Amino acid sequence: MSTDNGEYQVIFMPSGRRGVIKHGETVLDAARQLGVEIESICGGRLTCAKCKVQVEEGTFDKHGIRSAADHVTGAGDKEISLLERTDGVRPDATCRLSCVAHVQGDLLVFVPEESRAHKQVIRKSATDRPIDVDPAVRQVYVEVDEAFLGEHRGDWGRLQSALEDQWQLSGLSIDLLVLRRLQAALRRGDWAVTVTLWHDREVIDIQPGYKEGVYGLAVDIGSTTVVGHLCDLRTGELLATESAMNPQVTYGEDLMSRVSYAMSNSSGLNKMHSAIIETLNSLASRAARSAGLQLRDINEAVLVGNTTMIHLLLNIDPRELGGAPFALASRDAMDIKARELGLRFHPSAYIHILPAEAGHVGADNVAVLIAEEPYEREEVSLIIDVGTNAEVLLGNKDRVYSASSPTGPAFEGAQISFGIRAAPGAIERVRIDPETWEPRFRVIGEERWSDEWAMGPDAPPEAQPQHLAAGICGSGIIEVVAEMYLAGVILSDGRFNPDRPHERVTWRGKKGVYTLASSDQTTTGQPILVTQDDVRNVQLAKAALYAGAKLLMNRAAIDHVERVTLAGAFGSYIDPKYAMVLGLIPDCPLEHVAAVGNAAGDGARIALLNRHKRAEAVHYSREVTYVETAVATDFQAEFVGAIHIPHATDAFPNLESALGLVLPRMAANEGDRRERRAERIRSRRGRE
Amino acid sequence: MSTDNGEYQVIFMPSGRRGVIKHGETVLDAARQLGVEIESICGGRLTCAKCKVQVEEGTFDKHGIRSAADHVTGAGDKEISLLERTDGVRPDATCRLSCVAHVQGDLLVFVPEESRAHKQVIRKSATDRPIDVDPAVRQVYVEVDEAFLGEHRGDWGRLQSALEDQWQLSGLSIDLLVLRRLQAALRRGDWAVTVTLWHDREVIDIQPGYKEGVYGLAVDIGSTTVVGHLCDLRTGELLATESAMNPQVTYGEDLMSRVSYAMSNSSGLNKMHSAIIETLNSLASRAARSAGLQLRDINEAVLVGNTTMIHLLLNIDPRELGGAPFALASRDAMDIKARELGLRFHPSAYIHILPAEAGHVGADNVAVLIAEEPYEREEVSLIIDVGTNAEVLLGNKDRVYSASSPTGPAFEGAQISFGIRAAPGAIERVRIDPETWEPRFRVIGEERWSDEWAMGPDAPPEAQPQHLAAGICGSGIIEVVAEMYLAGVILSDGRFNPDRPHERVTWRGKKGVYTLASSDQTTTGQPILVTQDDVRNVQLAKAALYAGAKLLMNRAAIDHVERVTLAGAFGSYIDPKYAMVLGLIPDCPLEHVAAVGNAAGDGARIALLNRHKRAEAVHYSREVTYVETAVATDFQAEFVGAIHIPHATDAFPNLESALGLVLPRMAANEGDRRERRAERIRSRRGRE
Repeated sequence: MSTDNGEYQVIFMPSGRRGVIKHGETVLDAARQLGVEIESICGGRLTCAKCKVQVEEGTFDKHGIRSAADHVTGAGDKEISLLERTDGVRPDATCRLSCVAHVQGDLLVFVPEESRAHKQVIRKSATDRPIDVDPAVRQVYVEVDEAFLGEHRGDWGRLQSALEDQWQLSGLSIDLLVLRRLQAALRRGDWAVTVTLWHDREVIDIQPGYKEGVYGLAVDIGSTTVVGHLCDLRTGELLATESAMNPQVTYGEDLMSRVSYAMSNSSGLNKMHSAIIETLNSLASRAARSAGLQLRDINEAVLVGNTTMIHLLLNIDPRELGGAPFALASRDAMDIKARELGLRFHPSAYIHILPAEAGHVGADNVAVLIAEEPYEREEVSLIIDVGTNAEVLLGNKDRVYSASSPTGPAFEGAQISFGIRAAPGAIERVRIDPETWEPRFRVIGEERWSDEWAMGPDAPPEAQPQHLAAGICGSGIIEVVAEMYLAGVILSDGRFNPDRPHERVTWRGKKGVYTLASSDQTTTGQPILVTQDDVRNVQLAKAALYAGAKLLMNRAAIDHVERVTLAGAFGSYIDPKYAMVLGLIPDCPLEHVAAVGNAAGDGARIALLNRHKRAEAVHYSREVTYVETAVATDFQAEFVGAIHIPHATDAFPNLESALGLVLPRMAANEGDRRERRAERIRSRRGRE
Repeated sequence: MSTDNGEYQVIFMPSGRRGVIKHGETVLDAARQLGVEIESICGGRLTCAKCKVQVEEGTFDKHGIRSAADHVTGAGDKEISLLERTDGVRPDATCRLSCVAHVQGDLLVFVPEESRAHKQVIRKSATDRPIDVDPAVRQVYVEVDEAFLGEHRGDWGRLQSALEDQWQLSGLSIDLLVLRRLQAALRRGDWAVTVTLWHDREVIDIQPGYKEGVYGLAVDIGSTTVVGHLCDLRTGELLATESAMNPQVTYGEDLMSRVSYAMSNSSGLNKMHSAIIETLNSLASRAARSAGLQLRDINEAVLVGNTTMIHLLLNIDPRELGGAPFALASRDAMDIKARELGLRFHPSAYIHILPAEAGHVGADNVAVLIAEEPYEREEVSLIIDVGTNAEVLLGNKDRVYSASSPTGPAFEGAQISFGIRAAPGAIERVRIDPETWEPRFRVIGEERWSDEWAMGPDAPPEAQPQHLAAGICGSGIIEVVAEMYLAGVILSDGRFNPDRPHERVTWRGKKGVYTLASSDQTTTGQPILVTQDDVRNVQLAKAALYAGAKLLMNRAAIDHVERVTLAGAFGSYIDPKYAMVLGLIPDCPLEHVAAVGNAAGDGARIALLNRHKRAEAVHYSREVTYVETAVATDFQAEFVGAIHIPHATDAFPNLESALGLVLPRMAANEGDRRERRAERIRSRRGRE
């Protein structure tokens, strides 16, 4: 019902917020008073049409229902023609621009999705959580007092006054490069301009008249791969994703080689710095082009990477990261003008770098942290991001622990005889027949398993594989070792089974070698082999990973985790089942093990789209309890205990049931019992 | 007397501040508590020896006078050896470092000049006012926690903690270029570093160990001349002054030609911008070299100049200054990284640009304002800074008015037939015998007047002038016109006297020409002449200047001023007497007319040495009431009324008495009476 004195009841849907509004207020102001956020760029000047609402009805007038038309002021010609122009059709009478419709009776107002100020985009991953779109960069349209003789504020002073009056923005600074274009822009726009603001603190662009469009780039600089996501900062929409090899691999495959290169070559640091800057420029340029934009349309970028990558990006000597105590130059979040680094985004654009946690736990891990938000949950999650080092996060809303486990590069294909990076031709899936020990595999870029390949000169071309096998990538390494174990080719301690001679197994002294791909299946014409040393390296890597997780579980005084999240490219490609067979991860119901893809890249995108998440990153990067594996006494013990491939169900109660198999069990008469159990496994599994 | 509970009376001299101090406080802390500022860089680490005091005696103990030694803790070996090292002699027992001497009884402490935190330097000018040294850049010495395994703040985080603990500095940022050198500096200094801070907000340098030395440059960018003062920012001492021609004169002598050049040539702005930047670099380099420093030792610079100069410095198109309404891009004070402009000072140095007042009243005038501080005085001052435009300030503590008078470049030697800039050979002083109309003159670079020059091939070399006359500079133009008037060569309205034929006066139609220097006295072998048009141009210029001053007097509703200050190079060279004869300035007791030299440069130096004066500049640049001559209706009237050379004592009561002469007076029978008065003048003056 209406109240006295020209006050009316106004309800906003779908939020349901309601309250008493004075006669004559605009619907937009009413919304603000009631905490309903409606988009508006032009601030009531009838240029943007962002604040469109449906004035559904005046339902609660004491005289009964009346048409909404009586309860708001009528639409003017300019409003109607603007609505027509933006919608393409003549609007019905209930469709109004909230900035010019004045309340004069009770109202029910529906705010459509596109008019809500804080839009959300869904993060495409296992978790599908929404991201609130509230970026650091936004645009406002202002009309500025014309310069006249005897008025001395200067154009920037007058623009400041306009921003204060029309947008309540004060204390602003202006980038010198924008100041240089200010006077021409004001005059070309006939004293109306669109201003781009960074954190409501600095003017980073000015365009004549009413303009729309702010764009941002989120980049995860991996040691091997650089991935960039170009986003529309108004909608949060992902416009393009581009990736590139990190050109620094030329100077060293792994981080330590790059640190050494920087230390031993006087221009080494500069070279690696310039290389990544150029790659970022070309990657961003491609992303922009594919979205129909230009490099200079990028108004801000958020960059994440491990600590060495960030040091090299900033042209900071990484030598201190090469040895204990692994002192970072800075772990703070940073905002730097892109141009200072030679990044050719918008000339006034900033880059934001997320904070680090510790010497080996960088902005990429903090990005994973804010993407996965373990600190928001009751249940205890274990989040593992596997790279040369594996970053491990464990915790829940009460406390989060982190560690960096020295897995070495085995999971990336290094230190493995036929290891290669994930690329067409890389073996990524492996199955070994437990009876015959015959393998079959699948390579990247070829749908069919190797046992369906038609080989030889007489095979019809369409039956021949697109790619022959070139080597084994990370997920293939996990699977081949796990399958060798399940088939009995190797034993729980990693040794080749000495008791069963087989044509696929040859011996170099006491060390066995398994032939995974025959010479006719490979690009080189040489067989692809898995050696005893390869198995040992995988054992070391997986033991380090497991020990890191166990270390944190010990600190948190828990004996099991409720959720395991595998982050990163590696985590996306490995089969969680095999990760558990090998004992990479602690036991956990298999349905609670999920791969979330490039969570670091997602975290960068989240920080790009929502400035509050940057503050959250700073907060939690300090809240997290970092456990240094190098000085934790229990790490070594856990590591040694994790070298074997799991053989006891005690530590892995969920594994057998989840897999529908019984794992080999260690026993006094190990050979016999293992054989019997393996027998059972084979009979249950059959061929997939 | 001592109070109970281990509290003592401590008095600091020469300030006389006194108070009760707890047992065990250091003398330095006691000083801080009582508002006595003592220098300290090392913060009690016994490295800087800046905080030396004389612990004079413990005078007011109730048991009578005891030696100071009982009232402070004794000096340790390290303190004594540091005092020995810095003073060169063994200190007597009363000489102590206040940071390590602890109060344990009543004390009388004398703080010597060199230990006072806020030093003063005397500004060398007519006013000789002191400048408090409190610059935006300072150094502090800190000892930082060493990095150790399991500690994750990073080197910058640990430095921040040290700065907070040891210097109560928080919320600091660090320049990226300094961050790049941070880790090496900390380790080279064995975790002790000297940090250079800008406004206690940003770290702009870091050096290993204990280092001293911060330097600043104050620059006045004139349209013609650029002058730079290099100062020691610890002591305020002026280390070097260098000047250079403004290279932009190649693109246009006066401001409007440069604005036109920028508008009509696509690369004109860039050329003029690059030219001034290169000049600033080379000027700063020379100043640094002559002080035994390098360009990169300059930690901050304060730059002033007129609005066009500042636009060109910042590479901002000055076209809006070329016509009404003369809109500035910005009138705000600005801090910009020197490197952003290509200035090769310290790589992390800032430049500070003082604010402007209005389209034609720039940072140089604001510099004059804070140097002269008319707003601090009871008496009304008129401050005139003559250039192509004359900036005029009028006011006192109640209100200050400003205007920019379009004098044109006549006073700079332009628009005068034989006008040249002040340089060796320029005629700067002129006397004309009222009887004979014979002139004599003095040129820059030659002590003797021209009538003492020995000329011709037979003259001994030492009797010949160092420089022949090359032309007439600003002060010479004032004097020649004033002398021509006093001698009767020209009349009050500026016309050549048609009634007295003379060999020095020739006629071109109705326009007379006066021969100032004969052909044997000049570098060209051609005589130097003063034409009717020259006299007219001087009249127009002086009328504009006078009208500007009168306009402000009208606004302030006053009919006389109590003090006239002539600022700028021109103001230093002209003789105030002749300025008054010509009517450049309103009447004022001659002893209250003073030239203060380059007040704009002084203001820049003051703002460099004292950061609070920058805030004062911002405040008063907005407080000043700017009067636009172009729209002030009374300006034209005053201008027309001021074209004549003063003839009535009404407006200039002080003039005759001050000069010891009677000015020509306008009368009905103008010719006769003028002649009679002129007669009287001649008889009184004689030859100087």
